[in-house]
Amino acid sequence: MNDPHSTYVTPPFAGIATFGRQLHTQDLKGVDVAIVGVPYDSATSYRSGTRFGPRAIREQSLLLWGYNNALQVAPFEKLKVIDYGDVDVVPVDILETFAAVEREIDALLIAGCRVITLGGDHSIALPLLRAHRRKYGPLAVAHFDAHPDTWDEEFPGRKFSHGTPFRRAIEEDLIDTDAYIQIGIRGSTPSAHDYGDARRLGARMVTLDEALTLGTDGVLAEIRRRVGQRPLYLSFDIDVVDPAFAPGTGTPEVGGFTSVQILQLVRGLVGLNLIGADLVEVSPPFDAQGITAILAANLAFEFLSLMAKHKSA
Amino acid sequence: MNDPHSTYVTPPFAGIATFGRQLHTQDLKGVDVAIVGVPYDSATSYRSGTRFGPRAIREQSLLLWGYNNALQVAPFEKLKVIDYGDVDVVPVDILETFAAVEREIDALLIAGCRVITLGGDHSIALPLLRAHRRKYGPLAVAHFDAHPDTWDEEFPGRKFSHGTPFRRAIEEDLIDTDAYIQIGIRGSTPSAHDYGDARRLGARMVTLDEALTLGTDGVLAEIRRRVGQRPLYLSFDIDVVDPAFAPGTGTPEVGGFTSVQILQLVRGLVGLNLIGADLVEVSPPFDAQGITAILAANLAFEFLSLMAKHKSA
Amino acid sequence: MNDPHSTYVTPPFAGIATFGRQLHTQDLKGVDVAIVGVPYDSATSYRSGTRFGPRAIREQSLLLWGYNNALQVAPFEKLKVIDYGDVDVVPVDILETFAAVEREIDALLIAGCRVITLGGDHSIALPLLRAHRRKYGPLAVAHFDAHPDTWDEEFPGRKFSHGTPFRRAIEEDLIDTDAYIQIGIRGSTPSAHDYGDARRLGARMVTLDEALTLGTDGVLAEIRRRVGQRPLYLSFDIDVVDPAFAPGTGTPEVGGFTSVQILQLVRGLVGLNLIGADLVEVSPPFDAQGITAILAANLAFEFLSLMAKHKSA
Amino acid sequence: MNDPHSTYVTPPFAGIATFGRQLHTQDLKGVDVAIVGVPYDSATSYRSGTRFGPRAIREQSLLLWGYNNALQVAPFEKLKVIDYGDVDVVPVDILETFAAVEREIDALLIAGCRVITLGGDHSIALPLLRAHRRKYGPLAVAHFDAHPDTWDEEFPGRKFSHGTPFRRAIEEDLIDTDAYIQIGIRGSTPSAHDYGDARRLGARMVTLDEALTLGTDGVLAEIRRRVGQRPLYLSFDIDVVDPAFAPGTGTPEVGGFTSVQILQLVRGLVGLNLIGADLVEVSPPFDAQGITAILAANLAFEFLSLMAKHKSA
Amino acid sequence: MNDPHSTYVTPPFAGIATFGRQLHTQDLKGVDVAIVGVPYDSATSYRSGTRFGPRAIREQSLLLWGYNNALQVAPFEKLKVIDYGDVDVVPVDILETFAAVEREIDALLIAGCRVITLGGDHSIALPLLRAHRRKYGPLAVAHFDAHPDTWDEEFPGRKFSHGTPFRRAIEEDLIDTDAYIQIGIRGSTPSAHDYGDARRLGARMVTLDEALTLGTDGVLAEIRRRVGQRPLYLSFDIDVVDPAFAPGTGTPEVGGFTSVQILQLVRGLVGLNLIGADLVEVSPPFDAQGITAILAANLAFEFLSLMAKHKSA
Amino acid sequence: MNDPHSTYVTPPFAGIATFGRQLHTQDLKGVDVAIVGVPYDSATSYRSGTRFGPRAIREQSLLLWGYNNALQVAPFEKLKVIDYGDVDVVPVDILETFAAVEREIDALLIAGCRVITLGGDHSIALPLLRAHRRKYGPLAVAHFDAHPDTWDEEFPGRKFSHGTPFRRAIEEDLIDTDAYIQIGIRGSTPSAHDYGDARRLGARMVTLDEALTLGTDGVLAEIRRRVGQRPLYLSFDIDVVDPAFAPGTGTPEVGGFTSVQILQLVRGLVGLNLIGADLVEVSPPFDAQGITAILAANLAFEFLSLMAKHKSA
Repeated sequence: MNDPHSTYVTPPFAGIATFGRQLHTQDLKGVDVAIVGVPYDSATSYRSGTRFGPRAIREQSLLLWGYNNALQVAPFEKLKVIDYGDVDVVPVDILETFAAVEREIDALLIAGCRVITLGGDHSIALPLLRAHRRKYGPLAVAHFDAHPDTWDEEFPGRKFSHGTPFRRAIEEDLIDTDAYIQIGIRGSTPSAHDYGDARRLGARMVTLDEALTLGTDGVLAEIRRRVGQRPLYLSFDIDVVDPAFAPGTGTPEVGGFTSVQILQLVRGLVGLNLIGADLVEVSPPFDAQGITAILAANLAFEFLSLMAKHKSA
Repeated sequence: MNDPHSTYVTPPFAGIATFGRQLHTQDLKGVDVAIVGVPYDSATSYRSGTRFGPRAIREQSLLLWGYNNALQVAPFEKLKVIDYGDVDVVPVDILETFAAVEREIDALLIAGCRVITLGGDHSIALPLLRAHRRKYGPLAVAHFDAHPDTWDEEFPGRKFSHGTPFRRAIEEDLIDTDAYIQIGIRGSTPSAHDYGDARRLGARMVTLDEALTLGTDGVLAEIRRRVGQRPLYLSFDIDVVDPAFAPGTGTPEVGGFTSVQILQLVRGLVGLNLIGADLVEVSPPFDAQGITAILAANLAFEFLSLMAKHKSA
Repeated sequence: MNDPHSTYVTPPFAGIATFGRQLHTQDLKGVDVAIVGVPYDSATSYRSGTRFGPRAIREQSLLLWGYNNALQVAPFEKLKVIDYGDVDVVPVDILETFAAVEREIDALLIAGCRVITLGGDHSIALPLLRAHRRKYGPLAVAHFDAHPDTWDEEFPGRKFSHGTPFRRAIEEDLIDTDAYIQIGIRGSTPSAHDYGDARRLGARMVTLDEALTLGTDGVLAEIRRRVGQRPLYLSFDIDVVDPAFAPGTGTPEVGGFTSVQILQLVRGLVGLNLIGADLVEVSPPFDAQGITAILAANLAFEFLSLMAKHKSA
Repeated sequence: MNDPHSTYVTPPFAGIATFGRQLHTQDLKGVDVAIVGVPYDSATSYRSGTRFGPRAIREQSLLLWGYNNALQVAPFEKLKVIDYGDVDVVPVDILETFAAVEREIDALLIAGCRVITLGGDHSIALPLLRAHRRKYGPLAVAHFDAHPDTWDEEFPGRKFSHGTPFRRAIEEDLIDTDAYIQIGIRGSTPSAHDYGDARRLGARMVTLDEALTLGTDGVLAEIRRRVGQRPLYLSFDIDVVDPAFAPGTGTPEVGGFTSVQILQLVRGLVGLNLIGADLVEVSPPFDAQGITAILAANLAFEFLSLMAKHKSA
Repeated sequence: MNDPHSTYVTPPFAGIATFGRQLHTQDLKGVDVAIVGVPYDSATSYRSGTRFGPRAIREQSLLLWGYNNALQVAPFEKLKVIDYGDVDVVPVDILETFAAVEREIDALLIAGCRVITLGGDHSIALPLLRAHRRKYGPLAVAHFDAHPDTWDEEFPGRKFSHGTPFRRAIEEDLIDTDAYIQIGIRGSTPSAHDYGDARRLGARMVTLDEALTLGTDGVLAEIRRRVGQRPLYLSFDIDVVDPAFAPGTGTPEVGGFTSVQILQLVRGLVGLNLIGADLVEVSPPFDAQGITAILAANLAFEFLSLMAKHKSA
Repeated sequence: MNDPHSTYVTPPFAGIATFGRQLHTQDLKGVDVAIVGVPYDSATSYRSGTRFGPRAIREQSLLLWGYNNALQVAPFEKLKVIDYGDVDVVPVDILETFAAVEREIDALLIAGCRVITLGGDHSIALPLLRAHRRKYGPLAVAHFDAHPDTWDEEFPGRKFSHGTPFRRAIEEDLIDTDAYIQIGIRGSTPSAHDYGDARRLGARMVTLDEALTLGTDGVLAEIRRRVGQRPLYLSFDIDVVDPAFAPGTGTPEVGGFTSVQILQLVRGLVGLNLIGADLVEVSPPFDAQGITAILAANLAFEFLSLMAKHKSA
């Protein structure tokens, strides 16, 4: 049977697929971090399928051997981690889905857990930010994405979708825009003012091109400059990575980061006070070889490692 | 450029993919039948992806050579057929999607067209039935499906989904239950009374097992007995066919009809007054070789052929 | 969180994938049936990959809605079913793997559970039969398969593989050959005497061709004639079904049963005293659309239903 | 190293993929049957990819264990079979490709071999028939196909393509039309007279529908009535089988034979004097699980078995 | 219905797939740029399938949101763009296919359109260059490719194939070799003198290795040095990119450009007078996740953007 | 028929797939290099399927045109190369498989051939190193891998697996640890001391991160420093490359080398005395587009080129 230590014994192809082979439970006593799935994909503008994201990431997470050699930490030992399971989403009702997300995350935060959420499409960032804001106040946010997701509407007249959560979040004062930074933005947009809109809303936008010019160290310096010692929420859309490294996603955007670059960027956040994270837009039906889910599982493991390092610091 | 006659000239791999290489237009003058897509998949309970159904069926429809040897009719010659394009669905809002479907279909019916709708998930049968009911009164319905789709709710408390349209339709008096027949029902259900519920609502349910016992002729006789000379609406969920023949669908149910059987059943409807049809639940991301979309395109061609035969009769 | 009743609430794409959404536990108190995985694939002669079989079947089992309309029973209500997880196999050591299977199954049988085992390749039938024989004495066995699996050796000089378990079982007196029947055998063999060998060992071999001649009722009559009221063990190789219905398997053999035929055969066993079953040779890397795993999950559900019917009879 | 007997020793996943693990040689001394590939796909009207057909069939042929239990013959023992390799086709030049096919097949026939050709698209039947006609005179032909392939032109003004070989063959007097029979024809055609055209040219057309009405025995009786004791050439387009059983083909046509039906039909030819055969239109890029190539390999094995039976009779 | 402005309204999964949702028409009045498909794949030496290239690129082009943030231009607003549809190719006849391409492109150029052609294999560059040469005189050509395509023959004795167009073009004086540059050449060749041959014919060959040494700016400087203010034709073989970024191609060559590098190179051409372009060798059957077609659609969008920038400059 | 020179004539899609279209023979007279497959995958801890590695690499090797432009050598001309076929592995018995590998490789080395082995999983490095050690004494080894493969045990208590060969090899004194270097190590490990263990055993470990810091030249300098003029054995696990470039592998590890980087590293070994090499862990069932096998075939071609250069030097 799965238990938090069997990661080192049972081969990755065997057993029930919980994240990192951690216990599947909703008993929150002593829990440091809960992994939560939000299998919702009705707010995607192109490829659906992210509803299968949490399950695929769990399956591939069994490849995680436990000790992070880059950050030199064993997060499953430093932290009590559980796989909380999935929020009961309602595919036909985004508002009820948001409400369900908020209820569950509120409960987890109140119980003292940190939460790493596996999507699902990026619309779920909004209820996640609402819950974290209730606990932490306006949030410093590092937002990795190919797209700014700050449209006012997507699908005519719709305020909620996977293209709008960060505008809503700013309007609702969930984000401390002085500490809001977007990394990896690129590609075409419907209008010439989309990037400007994001900036006017307060985002520090580091486009992919600027990131390549600054280099990893430069981008990390810019993040640290914005975030400082604030509690940091990380919202991570897998499409920030190039489709070669993450083909299984909803709106693939060519010309993105490599896996090496993204790992360096994420690991470079070490020392910051990561209080929550989401990893969204993994779409398994478009991920024939599973490499997107494998990358996502590794990134979630890095998020855990950041939390473990900060705790032990 | 595409024109209705080029089906016989341009090879199927070439050109813009409209249904059967018919004109893509919204000019309804003289149109007998409009092919309409409804690329909506937010009401599915398992695999999403049916939003790509209309496009995949169009692509494979280019294999249709024009003359139906089984029914001995050339539907694109007998009928003026257009590819109307897709209804503008709103993935995050099922009610607005339903409204958009009703608006478009109402307009088409008022203009005198018959409509063959390519889904999309089966939730869209409800607005389709509403529109047809407004024109024709309570409808005779032949409903091919693995599932009765007569749940009261799917997802807790939700009245609209791909598991409920026929209960809603009966409650709204869209269907003349004396002339409502379900064919191909099988598989497990949440409760022991699901089949009974469908029957109590008025459906004549021919389960897959009963259909195999009756044989094709027996099933067709039963359909004719129920429908008689009434205008007939055909609602066709591709999962009525076995997953071997139609793997690309939302909720595959093993133990279904073969392609030979389903073609015989559909062709056996010749002579009935088919006034509208939908073909739903084709999910291309789960259809690696395209055989589901190819079957769906052929079935839509058979629907057209039935309309053409009735017109010429 | 998963619990045995949530099958009716949470959609199949959500949550941790245990079989039929039953509890993952190794607490055997009051358990009627344990679902056990044996993710072993080192004894296959062609396609490996069956190590991923248990996980894929679990995932697709979430489509099982709970009530079996054909057999009119709700097995998860009649029986206390658990997902026990997987045996810890050792890919490089078939003997240690067999020992591990025997240890676990012995413990389960001693605790009073019945076991449905998800493979894995067919070599695991041998330790499964050993364990069941220890509890029940020489076993009546209904063996569905494209291949007799009664070779003396496979790979030069090897006594244990997925082609030899039933010869070993007969030699070890695990099977009561008066009550041993093979159904669905077909295809080529290395020598002209392979079929004769199986018969000389005591098997009643119903080839696929004979099965088609006898018809479902004839085959079932023959099974009942052999098995009578004895406790019955069912060993089910998914390749008994045609590759169109089950492409994801280790040694696909063309010309097999359809899904309708196999469901009729399995359901036709109702009334027999099914005391254990295995379902083997599902190979997910060759099952792009998942239809093999879906069929396997449904068949395991039928096995459970047979057990539930017998209990309530 | 491959040798004709290692079929029984080396597992099917190992070694160089020659057909049935027979020697790859062009030394024709004592050879009864040569397996020849023609990897040409430039004459297909829809999906290309049949250029990979011969290689995929060879690979899957390694699953053939050697003894045909249905026909009770071990063809690799009765016959000296070689894998001759592939004809050097020229993708940009159908006439030069035809010439190359004729040169090679002529040489093989003159040397006294029978030839089983693996396609490639069906256009290659024309040069194959020419070569066989030169040796045997006007040929009795059993032609399994979903399409009559008797168009006068395909692509405007083109006489040679995969839709025209049998009209050309009849015009060139390659076929004895009294002994020409088409089996399995179905689907739509460009015009109402296509089926009539084929019949006027002299074909006995058994449509799929007629075949189902006649049953296997009836179809076989009809074939025997036409062919009698004449030397028989078998031209076999894999699309005669339903796409569920053979998805990997160029122009899939729904509603075809099952694998069981086609095996019965082919095996039912036993006793006829099969002097040559082709198996065409296997398109591996559309055959994700390889089941089309597996079926094709088995059918070629049945062709060999028919030749072996006739020799030993 | 599709119209040039709906790009901003209809989601990318909906509607008829024309390039960038531009009008499908052959009315050339006022048209600046026509997108034309040439679905020909009979001249490929390895993987066929590029006949499906134009359709796949069109489908993925619906992800293009309209405004190019890198080049700061909205090409569909600056330019009147149409989707002209596909040239009627003849798979069995490369010469007739070339003639058809020339007829159509001549007509488009005479009407004053610029043309962006979607292949198809690279053999079609020859008729494209012929047509453009007739209008513009000997052409400056920037040729992105893994292979020089300057063989004298491919397939014994054949002058026309996808490996020979640039030798033919130079022989026919279509190219001003002073302004001919190849970028990205790499991999093995049949002989030691292939690269030398290309250079002797007049090509400035920048191998992949040299390109990495020069850097993006160095390569661009070299292009500008060669091309100057001449009208520039761009011939772009997708295999210039590494197979990780473009797996769906005919002759994949490892060790190529990344998507970031190629976007920088293409955008770096801004200011040059791009009078025509082709994008060839996208093979959808080998592009399971569609990332090759997505990259190709984006590159075509960049070509359009270059044209729009030059017009507005 | 295949012969060593036809590489330049027959297109890559045609003919029997031997490596580089070299003769398949076990006649070793005059042979410089033998290509040998070891299709064994029972020692993998995650994805099986590497048993199909040798066949897939052979198939894709037909794309190798013969002349290596980077190293300026035509290895098939400089060297007499044969495709020896596959070792007869025994999937259920790792020790017998090792014995078979040793027998075959010993014989080849005694006959004076150099051997390039295509795996199979990495466990086979142990018998390969044993055989080479017998001929050459303790070996200098350049080991490209994402994982150190120096575990003491994998699967509880098992000394032989694909995670342990290099510890066994060091214990058995097969490797001259002064000349042992690992390149590309990265990712998580079960414990904090795994990397330290490898180093304590004597490995010079160049992690991926260190490699990126050193750059290609720095890594190559380090290799040369360790290896000097010793005979060099190269053990190459394809997972050293990032999953974007090599998705088809057993234990994908994100954040690896690009194809450009790995080609530069391998070509940079020119001048060293490469006396043997293996290329392992290519798993075709997870390589839908074949790009992993294409990369592997190219790398084996580079290994051959290194041998050819050294011979001619």
